[in-house]
Amino acid sequence: MAKKYVYFFGDGKAEGSGDMKNLLGGKGAGLAEMTNLGVPVPPGFTITTEACVEYQKLGDYPEGMWEESLKALEKLEKSINKKFGGKENPLLVSVRSGARVSMPGMMDTVLNLGLNDETVEGLASVSGSKRFAYDSYRRFIQMFSDVVLGIEHNRFEEVIKQVKKARNVEIDTQLDENDMFELVEKFKKLVSEELGRSFPQDVFEQLKLSVNAVFDSWNNQRAKTYRRLNKIPDEWGTAVNVVAMVFGNMGNDCGTGVAFTRNPSTGEKEFFGEFLINAQGEDVVAGIRTPEPISQLKGEMPEVFAQLEEVYRKLENHYKDMQDIEFTVEKNQLYMLQTRNGKRTAKAAVKIAYDMYEEGLIDKKTAVMRVAPAQVDQLLHPMIDPEEKYKAVAKGLPASPGAAVGKVVFTADDAEKMASKGEKVILVRNETSPEDIGGMDAAEGILTATGGMTSHAAVVARGMGKCCVAGCGALKIDEKSKKIVVDNETVRENDIITINGTTGEVILEKVKLIEPELSGEFAKILEWADEFRELGVRTNADTPKDSATARKFGAEGIGLCRTEHMFFEGNRIDAVREMILADDEEGRKKALYKIKPYQKEDFIGIFKAMEGLPVTIRLLDPPLHEFIPHTDEDIEKVAKYAGVPADKLKAKAEELKEFNPMLGHRGCRLGITYPEIYEMQVYAIIEAACEVKKEGVDVLPEIMIPLVGHSKELEVLRNITEKVADEVISSYNVGLKYLVGTMIELPRAALTADEIAEYADFFSFGTNDLTQTTFGLSRDDSGRFLPAYIDKKIYREDPFISIDQSGVGELVKIGVEKGRSRKKELKTGICGEHGGDPDSIYFCQKVGLNYVSCSPFRVPVARLAAAHAVLSE
Amino acid sequence: MAKKYVYFFGDGKAEGSGDMKNLLGGKGAGLAEMTNLGVPVPPGFTITTEACVEYQKLGDYPEGMWEESLKALEKLEKSINKKFGGKENPLLVSVRSGARVSMPGMMDTVLNLGLNDETVEGLASVSGSKRFAYDSYRRFIQMFSDVVLGIEHNRFEEVIKQVKKARNVEIDTQLDENDMFELVEKFKKLVSEELGRSFPQDVFEQLKLSVNAVFDSWNNQRAKTYRRLNKIPDEWGTAVNVVAMVFGNMGNDCGTGVAFTRNPSTGEKEFFGEFLINAQGEDVVAGIRTPEPISQLKGEMPEVFAQLEEVYRKLENHYKDMQDIEFTVEKNQLYMLQTRNGKRTAKAAVKIAYDMYEEGLIDKKTAVMRVAPAQVDQLLHPMIDPEEKYKAVAKGLPASPGAAVGKVVFTADDAEKMASKGEKVILVRNETSPEDIGGMDAAEGILTATGGMTSHAAVVARGMGKCCVAGCGALKIDEKSKKIVVDNETVRENDIITINGTTGEVILEKVKLIEPELSGEFAKILEWADEFRELGVRTNADTPKDSATARKFGAEGIGLCRTEHMFFEGNRIDAVREMILADDEEGRKKALYKIKPYQKEDFIGIFKAMEGLPVTIRLLDPPLHEFIPHTDEDIEKVAKYAGVPADKLKAKAEELKEFNPMLGHRGCRLGITYPEIYEMQVYAIIEAACEVKKEGVDVLPEIMIPLVGHSKELEVLRNITEKVADEVISSYNVGLKYLVGTMIELPRAALTADEIAEYADFFSFGTNDLTQTTFGLSRDDSGRFLPAYIDKKIYREDPFISIDQSGVGELVKIGVEKGRSRKKELKTGICGEHGGDPDSIYFCQKVGLNYVSCSPFRVPVARLAAAHAVLSE
Repeated sequence: MAKKYVYFFGDGKAEGSGDMKNLLGGKGAGLAEMTNLGVPVPPGFTITTEACVEYQKLGDYPEGMWEESLKALEKLEKSINKKFGGKENPLLVSVRSGARVSMPGMMDTVLNLGLNDETVEGLASVSGSKRFAYDSYRRFIQMFSDVVLGIEHNRFEEVIKQVKKARNVEIDTQLDENDMFELVEKFKKLVSEELGRSFPQDVFEQLKLSVNAVFDSWNNQRAKTYRRLNKIPDEWGTAVNVVAMVFGNMGNDCGTGVAFTRNPSTGEKEFFGEFLINAQGEDVVAGIRTPEPISQLKGEMPEVFAQLEEVYRKLENHYKDMQDIEFTVEKNQLYMLQTRNGKRTAKAAVKIAYDMYEEGLIDKKTAVMRVAPAQVDQLLHPMIDPEEKYKAVAKGLPASPGAAVGKVVFTADDAEKMASKGEKVILVRNETSPEDIGGMDAAEGILTATGGMTSHAAVVARGMGKCCVAGCGALKIDEKSKKIVVDNETVRENDIITINGTTGEVILEKVKLIEPELSGEFAKILEWADEFRELGVRTNADTPKDSATARKFGAEGIGLCRTEHMFFEGNRIDAVREMILADDEEGRKKALYKIKPYQKEDFIGIFKAMEGLPVTIRLLDPPLHEFIPHTDEDIEKVAKYAGVPADKLKAKAEELKEFNPMLGHRGCRLGITYPEIYEMQVYAIIEAACEVKKEGVDVLPEIMIPLVGHSKELEVLRNITEKVADEVISSYNVGLKYLVGTMIELPRAALTADEIAEYADFFSFGTNDLTQTTFGLSRDDSGRFLPAYIDKKIYREDPFISIDQSGVGELVKIGVEKGRSRKKELKTGICGEHGGDPDSIYFCQKVGLNYVSCSPFRVPVARLAAAHAVLSE
Repeated sequence: MAKKYVYFFGDGKAEGSGDMKNLLGGKGAGLAEMTNLGVPVPPGFTITTEACVEYQKLGDYPEGMWEESLKALEKLEKSINKKFGGKENPLLVSVRSGARVSMPGMMDTVLNLGLNDETVEGLASVSGSKRFAYDSYRRFIQMFSDVVLGIEHNRFEEVIKQVKKARNVEIDTQLDENDMFELVEKFKKLVSEELGRSFPQDVFEQLKLSVNAVFDSWNNQRAKTYRRLNKIPDEWGTAVNVVAMVFGNMGNDCGTGVAFTRNPSTGEKEFFGEFLINAQGEDVVAGIRTPEPISQLKGEMPEVFAQLEEVYRKLENHYKDMQDIEFTVEKNQLYMLQTRNGKRTAKAAVKIAYDMYEEGLIDKKTAVMRVAPAQVDQLLHPMIDPEEKYKAVAKGLPASPGAAVGKVVFTADDAEKMASKGEKVILVRNETSPEDIGGMDAAEGILTATGGMTSHAAVVARGMGKCCVAGCGALKIDEKSKKIVVDNETVRENDIITINGTTGEVILEKVKLIEPELSGEFAKILEWADEFRELGVRTNADTPKDSATARKFGAEGIGLCRTEHMFFEGNRIDAVREMILADDEEGRKKALYKIKPYQKEDFIGIFKAMEGLPVTIRLLDPPLHEFIPHTDEDIEKVAKYAGVPADKLKAKAEELKEFNPMLGHRGCRLGITYPEIYEMQVYAIIEAACEVKKEGVDVLPEIMIPLVGHSKELEVLRNITEKVADEVISSYNVGLKYLVGTMIELPRAALTADEIAEYADFFSFGTNDLTQTTFGLSRDDSGRFLPAYIDKKIYREDPFISIDQSGVGELVKIGVEKGRSRKKELKTGICGEHGGDPDSIYFCQKVGLNYVSCSPFRVPVARLAAAHAVLSE
């Protein structure tokens, strides 16, 4: 049997249906589905994607396609009672592309097809408006010539300009029917001159050429690029929809509008949208006339409005989702031109999903799947009021979401001082360093000129749930004279600015913010998500405060508690520096045991905040030079304060300097060369755990050794850890249990995970560092070329934001497999920045990790993403 | 049937044989084999390694072992006609360990066993020397007490000292028989006091305790450590050899000696060694008397010498290798105590292997296998005359082999100046940088205080085949005031020093060197190696001179021609800096095309030197900041010279500064952001190739893109390369063929090698960088902890010297497999420093690479190692 290439719809019945997207494309299937639902749709037919594929192969239509199309056209004429090419009541059609998935603007469309020197007169008489008819005709010539004949749109605009000038008018609507006629003549002349043949008057030729053009547009450059980027196979092809034209601009009994079945901004259950009387869709877009709210339609066209209400309810009940619809009213007759699932804000998504479940429209799984994890982040931070209008003077990286308004300060000290007086401040730095922690905490937001998405500022800000714009290269920050020069403007200390960490925008004025609310609906959706997800969700938190926040958001433990911040606070840093400057182990030990009580106190706070949940504590990771000052000025200051000669401090700084600190003397390498540091930390952790346990607090410490690259490192350090821990536990005489595990953050660790698993109770994939080493890419330096890489589409995404599945992900997979091959019950998690990224979370589910860990404010995102990962498997 | 635990040998027949090493240990098998060969060997028996294993398990002898031993002892008595514990003619035995493989000094030995208060008198009468008998007895007590009873050797030495003092004598030989008697009494008293029981007089108890001690010594700490390091399984156990004692010190018809069947230093075919009349083995070692050359023995004991000559010929013919033998003559009776393959210098190894092949003793394969690749490196560089005595004042890393003598200079300029006057200089720097190339080339050797085995100095020096000691931390180098302080001595400019790059030694005086010779025998061995090897051997060379050297050594092409050095020489660096300082692409292009003619000229030279062989050229790799000065002083100088404001240069330097340059804006990332740089290089390469081709030179350029981590990078850069190359080729109208490939030097490249292979004609594994990223280890910074890692045996070897097979090697394997899965005929090679390391070369053979590439002076090593890799598979 010959293949069927053409599917008709009209008269309340369609040959196709909504589930035939692969064959009819999204638009064609939608039109068929609406027709079958009894929704008024202009009749038409769809030429299948298969026909397109055959056409590409043959260079011609497949056998029978054109004949079927002509038959469908006849049906169409009958259905709408107009004649294609007819002189009296001519049928006009639109010819549109429509692939399986929406490829907005990528392929071509022709409207008003079927007009020629004769039919235009018929249209004039039927519509009662010569101007309307000739306006339609000139639009058709312009569009057809551009899309089908390859004559640039602008050439015609030039002609219009000339005519307007001759008529001495400003805008198109001021041109009358004679002007339109003149335009048509001039357009036709332009075509003849360009092509050496006249504009096709044969309407069938017009149709054929347009169908060809749509087929061909599947392989235009921008469509190909779009497909490549969106991983759409070249083999799919596009369908072609030939639909009877309806006109909303034929008088005051006509109109057009777009609407949503619920409020896309708040999610409220209300019909929401706008319309224009006597207008076409493009008039709404052009913004020449201001549309009216859809509710007004009730007064103006009560019957149409009632019909529209019935239609939208039918569509929502059918699609079981909020619909974004387009309609046209031609002479009091309603036509639906499109329906699709409507885009919505996070807030609306949550409310609609919750309401639809409550209304019995969708089940729990569907409700959970309706809220996009990437989107809900905006629910957790202050944001710029969407109603506000403002001008961004520069754009940096959206390093930590939310927005903040405050006075500019240039040092962490100033930030703390001013904040203590109740001032809201934005901390502006070329880059932040661990010494700035206090100031960062005090500030409303952080703005830096250098550094990427995982720079110090970005990571710490996200951890704090604080807004941050990083790497805003357009700012020339002069920290000494306390000013910023940007785009020829100068910003000084105490000037008020606004930063938007969700977009990266920097605004040199105060903008109104709105505060986030954690609605009851959202909490409910997250609870439902928890019912489905398999991945645990932990948090990265270093303080009792962050721990409590994360717990409130549903964290099931700490996956990464960094201990280095505990080395900076207050006067601890002095003891740390004393340790670094010590000449021998004894001197180091003496200094370390000054720090121990503080560390212990920190851990007690965290253990209490996380009662009953596991707490993974990473032993000291950064190279020691991060703890000592580097500029001459700072060295002098610290030397004076610490009572050591500046020369000694300088010599030490010089000695510790590294070419590539990222690949230097850090992580467990410190533990190997200075075991006393790790010993002190283990004492502090286990003593803290024993003490809270004595108080009756349920405590589950997990000690994590960073930067292991060789099983022997872990073997040695596990031995040291166990020796100290077991000694402490037996001295407290409590039956404390603890785990010892490691970060997998070096390619070699992943590749030899079987050997490492021998000494590890758990693996935590540190995908930040793993990304750096796998790509050979320093996150601190990548700012200079990474944007170009994203721009040129060399990397599809910033690999520090979403895990690179084929490289870094492959290592994670190898690490999990090899680790479990040696130790079946090995617990595995991820604690890099990727732990809060939905795509990365799907990947974690796929490779079978036990949990993800992310910053407190990403916990809800992760819970939802983890559920999506299961439900979409 | 019960297991046989004891194997007797004597009377010209042995129960065991040479191929029973696993059961009898190396020594036991050797004694058995010699006995069977009819070589005179003192009779004895071997208790098997299996007995040892059983003993370890049971904590006692396995059933029957002791009884078998006693039976063997009886045979022994009969064979030598002495009685164990006999009062008249007592049998004394040695008890020695002997594992499958030699573990020198790791386990215990007891000599003269069988002496007690009665047998000593028998020995006295038989030997005719009471002094000899009591001397033997006191030695036995001392040794037995140390090894078996656990009383420290030194305690006995104290007693000897007291006696010597009382007698007022200086050396042991001055003690007479009464003194010896007194020593025995005092020793026995010491034992009684220490142990609360008297020294065992029962000779069977002595034997039993000694056998136990040898068995137990298998598990002493040093033996366990040795096994772990040398990967010797704990389950092997040691055999025990109980052998009749023979004495070379019973009169002038006795003697002892050690000899080699050929000269171990030169390889000459001559009996070589020394002997002492009336002496025991330990006297030769102690150095109290000076031994005589073995040839003298002919005059002193003609019959013994003749017998010895017969024996050594027999042994060499049997073992088909040069033997290292030990013998003792007791009353004109020759006894062979040991034979084993003799250690030899590289020179001797080559000559012996060649000669033995010529003599028909061994086949070609064996000859090739007899020369250790790691060893021959010393044949290619000047070395310190082994006869020289000197004191090294400090020891750095043996960064590039060979030795050099010269005057100390502190700057590259001074080195060039002085060298141009014919002075020999050693360039001393804290660290070298690419600007020092000229001075490095001019110097005899290079000495640095910082930097590791793959620091700039080390890599460049090896490339030049020039001696280098790197990272010698003991030197305090003050480059400004031009002095070195080391070990309280001060070295100034123009002082003469010697450095030994083979050992890392630094010597503050002139030491005599000997020049290398590439003997005809060596050339022959390499030719034979070429017949067997499967891996190609290329070289890393950047200049026509290096290319020619490498070709002379047998290189089959260039595997890595770095182009960055070409950016430094002469006034090119000015143009490079102009390019870096340019504000836009046009400015950069202008500067680049000043460099092009030079680059082209370089390539022409290299192509000519490598006529007919492939030349792989790597496009620019280092970050741009390497080309601009960094200290204020240098910036001033360069700014003045280049005619740009110092501030601009400074700002640029600041702008280009990177936190982790290794992971920064370098390699193909430069090519992506500044395509004009790579374009210029491709023009230079292809124009050069076309021009030499026009002259009739056969040229095979291979263009290599560095630091690719994503297939898209290579896709983009391959397109640029092909566009330029094809344009040039068609303009020259020559049918030039070229390849485009990539380095695989990032973990991600290896993991996604299938995607990358799509755009690559070849892969070259850059295992230097791959090691850095896989381990997360900066070679420039690792100096601070890598030594501790090697010391603590966390890494078995420096991974920059020998490839880490389980991590880095795994990535190479993955890279090859994935690459070939996409492109079956993909050419793969290695061009890291590992390309010249024998172990790494075996690995390359195993994973199926096509070639290795190494510095010119390593080419012979690589050729040999590649053959070994095949022959030992």
